[in-house]
Amino acid sequence: MAELLARRDIDFLLHDWLKLDELLGRPRFVAHDRAGIDALMDLSEDLAREQFLSHYKLSDQQEPRLENGTVRVLPAIHTAIAAYAEAGLFGAPFAAELGGSQLPSLAQTASLAWFMAGNVATAAYPMLTIANARLIATFGTRAQIDAFARPQIAGKWLGTMCLSEPQAGSSLGDITTRAVAEGEDALGPRFRVSGSKMWISGGDQDISENIVHLVLAKIPGADGRPLPGTRGISLFIVPKVLPNGTRNDIAVAGLNHKMGYRGTSNCLLSFGERGGAIGWLIGAPGQGLACMFQMMNEARIAVGLGAAALGYRGFLESRAYATSRPQGRRPGQRDGAPVPIIAHADVKRMLLAQKAYAEGSLALILYCARLVDEEQAAETEEARAEAGTLLGLLTPVAKTWPSEYGLAANDLAIQVHGGYGYTRDFDVEQLYRDNRLNPIHEGTTGIQAIDLVGRKIRRDRLYSLELLLARVHETAGRARQDECLVPLAISLTDAWCHVHAAAQFLCTIEDDAQALAGATPFLHAFGHAVLGWIWLDQVVATGAAEADFRQGKLHACRWFHEAELPRVAHWLALVQSEPGTVTDLRPEWL
Amino acid sequence: MAELLARRDIDFLLHDWLKLDELLGRPRFVAHDRAGIDALMDLSEDLAREQFLSHYKLSDQQEPRLENGTVRVLPAIHTAIAAYAEAGLFGAPFAAELGGSQLPSLAQTASLAWFMAGNVATAAYPMLTIANARLIATFGTRAQIDAFARPQIAGKWLGTMCLSEPQAGSSLGDITTRAVAEGEDALGPRFRVSGSKMWISGGDQDISENIVHLVLAKIPGADGRPLPGTRGISLFIVPKVLPNGTRNDIAVAGLNHKMGYRGTSNCLLSFGERGGAIGWLIGAPGQGLACMFQMMNEARIAVGLGAAALGYRGFLESRAYATSRPQGRRPGQRDGAPVPIIAHADVKRMLLAQKAYAEGSLALILYCARLVDEEQAAETEEARAEAGTLLGLLTPVAKTWPSEYGLAANDLAIQVHGGYGYTRDFDVEQLYRDNRLNPIHEGTTGIQAIDLVGRKIRRDRLYSLELLLARVHETAGRARQDECLVPLAISLTDAWCHVHAAAQFLCTIEDDAQALAGATPFLHAFGHAVLGWIWLDQVVATGAAEADFRQGKLHACRWFHEAELPRVAHWLALVQSEPGTVTDLRPEWL
Repeated sequence: MAELLARRDIDFLLHDWLKLDELLGRPRFVAHDRAGIDALMDLSEDLAREQFLSHYKLSDQQEPRLENGTVRVLPAIHTAIAAYAEAGLFGAPFAAELGGSQLPSLAQTASLAWFMAGNVATAAYPMLTIANARLIATFGTRAQIDAFARPQIAGKWLGTMCLSEPQAGSSLGDITTRAVAEGEDALGPRFRVSGSKMWISGGDQDISENIVHLVLAKIPGADGRPLPGTRGISLFIVPKVLPNGTRNDIAVAGLNHKMGYRGTSNCLLSFGERGGAIGWLIGAPGQGLACMFQMMNEARIAVGLGAAALGYRGFLESRAYATSRPQGRRPGQRDGAPVPIIAHADVKRMLLAQKAYAEGSLALILYCARLVDEEQAAETEEARAEAGTLLGLLTPVAKTWPSEYGLAANDLAIQVHGGYGYTRDFDVEQLYRDNRLNPIHEGTTGIQAIDLVGRKIRRDRLYSLELLLARVHETAGRARQDECLVPLAISLTDAWCHVHAAAQFLCTIEDDAQALAGATPFLHAFGHAVLGWIWLDQVVATGAAEADFRQGKLHACRWFHEAELPRVAHWLALVQSEPGTVTDLRPEWL
Repeated sequence: MAELLARRDIDFLLHDWLKLDELLGRPRFVAHDRAGIDALMDLSEDLAREQFLSHYKLSDQQEPRLENGTVRVLPAIHTAIAAYAEAGLFGAPFAAELGGSQLPSLAQTASLAWFMAGNVATAAYPMLTIANARLIATFGTRAQIDAFARPQIAGKWLGTMCLSEPQAGSSLGDITTRAVAEGEDALGPRFRVSGSKMWISGGDQDISENIVHLVLAKIPGADGRPLPGTRGISLFIVPKVLPNGTRNDIAVAGLNHKMGYRGTSNCLLSFGERGGAIGWLIGAPGQGLACMFQMMNEARIAVGLGAAALGYRGFLESRAYATSRPQGRRPGQRDGAPVPIIAHADVKRMLLAQKAYAEGSLALILYCARLVDEEQAAETEEARAEAGTLLGLLTPVAKTWPSEYGLAANDLAIQVHGGYGYTRDFDVEQLYRDNRLNPIHEGTTGIQAIDLVGRKIRRDRLYSLELLLARVHETAGRARQDECLVPLAISLTDAWCHVHAAAQFLCTIEDDAQALAGATPFLHAFGHAVLGWIWLDQVVATGAAEADFRQGKLHACRWFHEAELPRVAHWLALVQSEPGTVTDLRPEWL
């Protein structure tokens, strides 16, 4: 059976490339050492295989179901979550004073990658719970943290994020959920929340005794009407079960039936049908979206992680299949025994592309996790700020690129399997169906593109891009010291020249609509340029690795630079010169 | 509810673009006129909606099942096939003397497109049956035609093609099914067939009283051993029920459970477990593959048609959704009512891309159907030969391009729907799952690429490519007469310059393995160049159309030329200069 992820690669990424040891020397992480991290990877791999992978097919076949107002999920999911809690993994990234183990985000993210490779839908429950608890730990009062974050850190309760509504998916300014003030208690200003929330992952389940919902809602003004747009949005903690043990006023109005990712229940929740669900304001009124962005950004990177893990497992599954399946002969050879299909050039190409997509995606996400650690624990204020800025710039890519190309990898994994890959006897078709969610949830690719161009390029006036460029040039400089990497350094700097010029162009456009019309092709180009850099930077770090490993990284990097990186200039030409073909289009012409 | 296909476009393609009227003037088609064809389109659209679309979801939810050795399919599929037969559509393309109605392939293909858009899995039964009967009508004896083709032409029996075996999918030379001679009777040389056949669509079902299997098998030589490779392959007619009314020796050894396309039963068949299934040789011994290629080529174009139809319906579904779903505002606008999402540039782009992929795919397939008619009914021997040559060159593109880009269209259709598109409440996720089969069956994309480069470019020494180039240049010449089309004529001839140069390069390579290593990128480039031509040729033909229709075709063509056609040069650079990144790759590096 194929590995879930390549442990050799994980070790390379954590230690040789991202220098986890350096991090472990910082005060926050002093309780950890390399042996402990290695043991955590062993544990994660074993638990992921035994408790998560083990019900991968079953949780696809037996979806969550709604019974008497409660969502029931597969018993194997209960067991898996209990095992995850038992291993103390819910608390991994949290401060010791909150019951956590102060693990670096880099190590915690690598740990989570195993679980997502094993069963992405089951892993979604802890992922959301950890992000929920982290938001409360950041913005909540001590009482809120004790009441709502600690039980999640202990793995007793699970958490959700409640943003979308049936009429407002990507346009949060249009939400109509209301929160009416009702005094204050030990947990803070208390409100009655009412409204419908759509697409709530883990919105209801029978795994945990309580569920902590973080709910965006609007507080009506003196005139009884909320502020229009996003300015009026506040954030509330709304638990399924109230501290006094009674059920809050939250009903499951419906369960969505998805193409994949089925083990994660996905609900339409109705708050306040019987007078208003009780919730406590977290953060300042009107600051709901600003607070929620912490959780959204964490979830966006986690989506990228899940997509990378799915792409990665498909790569390993199809590599194993291609190695063991005999079929056909080398061109021109008519007789003799069939060869394993990995001998065919087209199969090699499909495997190499998957390697480039999947390993590149995982590397990107771990790089971002390293930035999270730098943001929190770097030695200087300047370094912390730089890490935060870079993380903001890379987040739309970390969300989107693995989602698009992890899916492309899974598409190729099916293709390598031929007809077998299309059957439910193998896992690759499910990996593909699961992965198809990733370009949608936590902000579609189009939304990420608007975030990148609107917030990170135009509003920043290239400041964050210049920071990234400095790192890119550093990588290219190191690559130039090895003669065989010079062509890769050239293709990398060439791609970034194009990106820089296009970004400058986008900053000169006055009209928002015009600037954003090319946002999606810009995101594609920017993402590819980032990955071209991530790949070359990995290759530069393979100096001490064994020859086969180094050759693998080198070939994947070369393939990416030769076959994919030239698309950057092409996408950017569209950004800078689209002659109205799309923007002038009238609906009646379609 | 959205249309299945755009009738306005079908009318344009058949009449304004492909000049069906010209065809109807030929002796073979003299029984038909425009009014009759229009009525056939009306009938096909209605039947497809009422009898095929009506069980689209149900046939996905309730798969064929194996009961006491027989495959049971949904009753709605029985009804649909009966309605198809009742309308005389099984016989549509056949000669009157065989009980057919001598319809042009162009009209029959357009008719079938409606059914595939309605329910591609149910439409697979008549598609295979018609192709099976056509093979028998071409290569069978009068007695074989009467016994096995006529009942299929009447829609009483259904047919299959039995090529692959569990150990031999794409490498037919390795099949081990044996046919041992057992005398001769009125139906021809009789054999006992034994072996396993895999991936047999419609391999068993309870729709028709009999099933006509066309089975590739090898006749052992005097030494008891068959010839190795494809030279030893012969073709046999092996019915489920023998002419004397007894069951033949064919067992259903298994049923495959697929990601999509579920209404079509897909079987592992075991021939001859009890002494040998009785079959009759059709065509000469050793000519099995040559005969089967007629059915394979027809099925390949039909796969492209199904992929195009799925892409097309997804386009229309998402266009309807985008028109009716309010969400967000124009950039910079904060207040006021939300706009329909079709107002957003990124949604326009996704719809325009789908239009380019889906309408382009359908146009390509109908162009090929027109070539089938020319091959059979053109006035001169030279014109018939030219049509046959062009059809051979275009078949790998007709199979592959709609399969790859119809799927890409369905991916965008999901994306336009956002989270809703990922749920089973809408059809687009099923269209996407159904379409994912198309790059696999009837020869994967990689196999089509080898066919294109090996057989159609290298073996032909560019002869067929030159024929196609003449048509491309004719299109470009006509486009140049309209000032606003000049840039499109330039991008088209530029793309084809690259294709021509790369094809010449491929012909100069001595080594087969080296030439075929770049086959897949060449196929991608060639396919895009073909579509660039198909699109411009359509635009040139819109002169008499109303402004909205013309603008739609023009914008889709411009989008394709601007956003997609530049990829041709890039793919071809890979074909001509891949520096061993893929070919030198060793499995242990992956």
